[in-house]
Amino acid sequence: MQTAVNDFQAWSRERQTALELRLQEILPSAEIAPGKLHDAMRYAVLGGGKRIRPLLACAAGELADAPLERTLLAGAAVELIHAYSLVHDDLPCMDDDVLRRGKPTCHVEYDEPTALLVGDALQSLAFQVLAEHRLADDPARQIEMVRVLAAAAGSRGMAGGQAIDLDAVGKQLGAPELEFMHIHKTGAVIRAALRLGLLCGRTLDDGDDQRVDHFAKCIGLAFQVVDDVLDAEASTATLGKTAGKDARSDKPTYVSALGIPAAKSLARELREEAASALRPLGGRALRLGQLADYIVMREF
Amino acid sequence: MQTAVNDFQAWSRERQTALELRLQEILPSAEIAPGKLHDAMRYAVLGGGKRIRPLLACAAGELADAPLERTLLAGAAVELIHAYSLVHDDLPCMDDDVLRRGKPTCHVEYDEPTALLVGDALQSLAFQVLAEHRLADDPARQIEMVRVLAAAAGSRGMAGGQAIDLDAVGKQLGAPELEFMHIHKTGAVIRAALRLGLLCGRTLDDGDDQRVDHFAKCIGLAFQVVDDVLDAEASTATLGKTAGKDARSDKPTYVSALGIPAAKSLARELREEAASALRPLGGRALRLGQLADYIVMREF
Repeated sequence: MQTAVNDFQAWSRERQTALELRLQEILPSAEIAPGKLHDAMRYAVLGGGKRIRPLLACAAGELADAPLERTLLAGAAVELIHAYSLVHDDLPCMDDDVLRRGKPTCHVEYDEPTALLVGDALQSLAFQVLAEHRLADDPARQIEMVRVLAAAAGSRGMAGGQAIDLDAVGKQLGAPELEFMHIHKTGAVIRAALRLGLLCGRTLDDGDDQRVDHFAKCIGLAFQVVDDVLDAEASTATLGKTAGKDARSDKPTYVSALGIPAAKSLARELREEAASALRPLGGRALRLGQLADYIVMREF
Repeated sequence: MQTAVNDFQAWSRERQTALELRLQEILPSAEIAPGKLHDAMRYAVLGGGKRIRPLLACAAGELADAPLERTLLAGAAVELIHAYSLVHDDLPCMDDDVLRRGKPTCHVEYDEPTALLVGDALQSLAFQVLAEHRLADDPARQIEMVRVLAAAAGSRGMAGGQAIDLDAVGKQLGAPELEFMHIHKTGAVIRAALRLGLLCGRTLDDGDDQRVDHFAKCIGLAFQVVDDVLDAEASTATLGKTAGKDARSDKPTYVSALGIPAAKSLARELREEAASALRPLGGRALRLGQLADYIVMREF
């Protein structure tokens, strides 16, 4: 068991290190004009984050025998979308947060208009990465990657989830409404990460495709449930972002809807459902299973 | 001459009308959740604007015998990028403007977080449109469209131009620095519109490709010079946006750098250079030439 854990840590670290190098290459140097914008983009993306979405892309890619280099680039595109969303979410007109990944947020370190442009430019860069490298044998599959990521980021995905979230402040939502919100806000991009990983490789049979997608839905939701629990239980130092914010800003969460013990149970149930979805795939899905465990067990 | 003008008006109107229908179909209905976000996205895009970028895409497409339906969709994608940039530029932390296309700006009509998400989601939607429809015979050309639009929108294109613009407030720039700023801020997306139009059709020979690109650079710059003159000379009612803003916000413009008469001459020179670039293409480039005239002669 300890060996499996160590082995997973080595697998993750290797990919996190390689991804960091790719991101460093993809992001324009601060020497290139406009230097301040490029500096701020690098600040927002590099040197932090668990890189869970790229790891999911890599693990899904392994199921489809995708070359690692491709899944790293596809994962980098997803991570750029994630990073842009954090920069915009932290803005004063949104969550107005000052701390992210243990550092001042982008608009605090630079300024508000720069942070706005950082998010905008990171989103463009994500699609540029998907188009600039050969990421699939069949170009039609690469176009499908663009479609999947764009849909996941847009008004019926992540940005839509943010809008639902804004609208929910001060309301008491039940578990079904929370699920609807988070399927958009967090779930869509996590699903896209897995889908992009698969698209980098050979075509799986439909059943396996659906199993991975069901897994993705479960862990996307589990991820948010765990986030809600951590926000309520962990310290700001551990999180690297302001803790206890949900309650103070009167946001409905799984903790406010269910209480901490039931929220923890829900996370474990979702992890179990995710594991069941993978079972028919056997040992090939080892890394995905380990990532699900990592997502759910991060801190409790 | 009058006939040619009428004919150009009919050509433009037909395409503007068809484009409006495409945009109405592309933008999710306000009946679909999140309704407020979708309503605000439609507000920001529909029922206004000269649609110059899509018209340029259509005119370029005609040079390459591209089907109209394709260039309309490619043009719609470019227009979504343009619309997102206007929504974000008008935000309080940027230009803080209350009037756009004769209506309250998006954050005034809705609210600031919604306007932020509108811009974000419109950008995603632009790339979704490029990926969701068959826009080129060769899928590799369609991937190239994504690359071209992403690069034009990003930190080394439009968003970068905005950053340079922010940095220039209160400074006295000469014509070369202004040109550098506007090649990014306005020029990049205009060039992309023409490039996307060409990519919808057959491959032109390299010389023609370069002629169209040189034309694009000239009219992109001319467009901004004319904008600067209009801001100084026209009324808010004529413009549909706040006039005289550049001087009040101490922004360097072609008017502040050169004065109005020299700025007008520069616009006419750029129009002449644009026309020269097209000359070897003969009658096939009729619409492009008429669009250049329209851009430069809009109001003076």
